[in-house]
Amino acid sequence: MAHPQLAGFPVVVETDVAWGEMDSFRHVNNVVFFRYFENARIEYLRRVGWFNLMDNTGLGPIVHSAQARFRRPLKYPDRLFVGARVITLEADRVTFEHRLVSAAWDDLAADGQAVVVCFDYRGNKKAALPFDLRERIDQLERTPGGLTTG
Amino acid sequence: MAHPQLAGFPVVVETDVAWGEMDSFRHVNNVVFFRYFENARIEYLRRVGWFNLMDNTGLGPIVHSAQARFRRPLKYPDRLFVGARVITLEADRVTFEHRLVSAAWDDLAADGQAVVVCFDYRGNKKAALPFDLRERIDQLERTPGGLTTG
Amino acid sequence: MAHPQLAGFPVVVETDVAWGEMDSFRHVNNVVFFRYFENARIEYLRRVGWFNLMDNTGLGPIVHSAQARFRRPLKYPDRLFVGARVITLEADRVTFEHRLVSAAWDDLAADGQAVVVCFDYRGNKKAALPFDLRERIDQLERTPGGLTTG
Amino acid sequence: MAHPQLAGFPVVVETDVAWGEMDSFRHVNNVVFFRYFENARIEYLRRVGWFNLMDNTGLGPIVHSAQARFRRPLKYPDRLFVGARVITLEADRVTFEHRLVSAAWDDLAADGQAVVVCFDYRGNKKAALPFDLRERIDQLERTPGGLTTG
Repeated sequence: MAHPQLAGFPVVVETDVAWGEMDSFRHVNNVVFFRYFENARIEYLRRVGWFNLMDNTGLGPIVHSAQARFRRPLKYPDRLFVGARVITLEADRVTFEHRLVSAAWDDLAADGQAVVVCFDYRGNKKAALPFDLRERIDQLERTPGGLTTG
Repeated sequence: MAHPQLAGFPVVVETDVAWGEMDSFRHVNNVVFFRYFENARIEYLRRVGWFNLMDNTGLGPIVHSAQARFRRPLKYPDRLFVGARVITLEADRVTFEHRLVSAAWDDLAADGQAVVVCFDYRGNKKAALPFDLRERIDQLERTPGGLTTG
Repeated sequence: MAHPQLAGFPVVVETDVAWGEMDSFRHVNNVVFFRYFENARIEYLRRVGWFNLMDNTGLGPIVHSAQARFRRPLKYPDRLFVGARVITLEADRVTFEHRLVSAAWDDLAADGQAVVVCFDYRGNKKAALPFDLRERIDQLERTPGGLTTG
Repeated sequence: MAHPQLAGFPVVVETDVAWGEMDSFRHVNNVVFFRYFENARIEYLRRVGWFNLMDNTGLGPIVHSAQARFRRPLKYPDRLFVGARVITLEADRVTFEHRLVSAAWDDLAADGQAVVVCFDYRGNKKAALPFDLRERIDQLERTPGGLTTG
C-alpha cells in the first residue's frame, strides 16, 4: 500500500479493526487509536534496534506525551494502515508523527504525535540518545519529507 | 479526597490500577491513561445528563481530539483520582481538562485535554450544544477555577 | 496458511501480536487470548450473516460461556492464526471451538471453546436460531472434521 | 459488602464498570470479565506474597487455563464485587474459583475458574509450589467453604 497520506513514512503497519474495539457508540473507541499509533511506533523502535539496545544497556523509551486528532469514525470491518515517522530528533528525545489511513474511508482517519524520551531504566533517570541509535533513526528517515535534527 | 491538584474539579472518579494494565516495562501503559481520563469525562457527561439527552434526541458526544502529558510512571498497586472539568464551552463543543493524581506518588501523575463535539447521531452531522446541557455544565462548573464560555 | 492444527477450520483470521498486549511478565496477557478468539468468532458470525440478521430482526449472539487452555507463552513480535469452527449446533445455541497457532512457535499456542446463545435483543429473551442461519452455518462447516447437529 | 454469593471468599475486590468496557451490544464485552477475575486473583497472589517470592526466587504464577460462565449482562454505571478463592491446591498448581456480583443486579453476574501453575521464570520450567506459599494460601482459606488440598 502506498496511500498518498502515508508518503514519506518509513514505517507503516497494517491491522484489522477488531469488532471488540468498538464501544457503545458503535465505532472504535478513541482510546484504541493510541494503541494503533503505539503499534506503529513500537515497530519503528524495533527496526532501529532500540529493544536490543535496552536489553544491553538499560536505555529504553518512555512516552512523555501523546496527542491525537480523530478525523473519521472507524467501524468493524476495516483495514488500517498506521504510519510512524520521526519529525524531531533532540539530545534526549524524539518526536513521532503518526497517521492512520482507513481502507473503508480510503482516507486519513486520524493523526497525532508522541514524544518519546530516552530513559535509563537501571539508573532511573533521563539519558542522552546513544549515537548509534540516532544514526539508525537518521538513516531510516532519509526519505522525502523526513527529519528535522534538533 | 481533596488533593490540592484536583481543587476546582467538579468531577473526580477513583479507580485502582489493575495489574494487567502494566506493560512489559512494568508500568501502566500510556494508552491506559486515556481510558482513565475517559472514565472521568464519561462520569461528567452522565452527571450533566448527556446520556439521557442522547437517548431522547440522538445528540451525543464525539471525541474530536485528545492529549496527555505523562508525568510519573504508575504501578500496581496504586489508587488513582481522576478529575474532569470543562475549561472552554463553545457553540458546538466543550474542552475538558483532566488531571490524574496517584496515591502512591501523592502527586499529579498525568494531565491532559479532550475536545468533545456535539454530534447528531441520527442526522449524522455536527450540531449545536442544546441550551439545557450548556446550563447544566455551567452550573456544575460554578466553582473556583472554573469555566470560560466561548 | 494451512497449518495442520487448523485443518477443518472454515474460518481463520490472522493478526500480529501487539507489543502492548504483553503484561509485566513479558508475554501476552491471558485475557487477550479471549479477544483473539473473539476476533475469529466474529468473523465467522459475519460470514454466516448474523450481523445482517441482527439489524433486521434484533436476534443477535450473546456469549454464554468461554474457556481457554494456554499452551505456549506468546511474545511480540509474532503472527497469529486463529481458527473458529462450530462443533455443536443446538436449537438456541452454537458451540465454537477455537485454536490459535503462533508463527514463532510454528505450533498450537492455545485452544478453547465458547458457547453463543441466540438472543432477542428487542424482546429481551432467548430465541431459537433462525433456520436460514443454521443452514449457512451448516454449509460453512461442510468440511472434513466439521459439525455435530444437536 | 458481604453479599451471600461471596460468602467464604477470602479476597473480594471492588471496581466500577467503565463505560469504555461496553461493546457495540451496549453491555460489557465478555473478554473484560476475565480481566475482572484477574484483578481479584492478582490481589490474592499479592496477599499471600507471591510477587515478593517471584522477585526473590523467580518462581512466579502462569495461567494454565481459564473459564467463565456469564450469567447477567453488565452495563455502565455499575459497581462490581469480584471474589477469588483457592478450591484446589496441588503440588505445582492452584485452582481458583471466581465470582462476580453486580450491585445493579444485586446478584451473581458471572463465575469461573482459573488454574495457575508455579513456573520457574529463570529456569524456564514448571516448579513445585514453595512450602511457605502453600502455608499462606492455607491460612487465607481457613474459612468456611474453603480449600481442598491435593
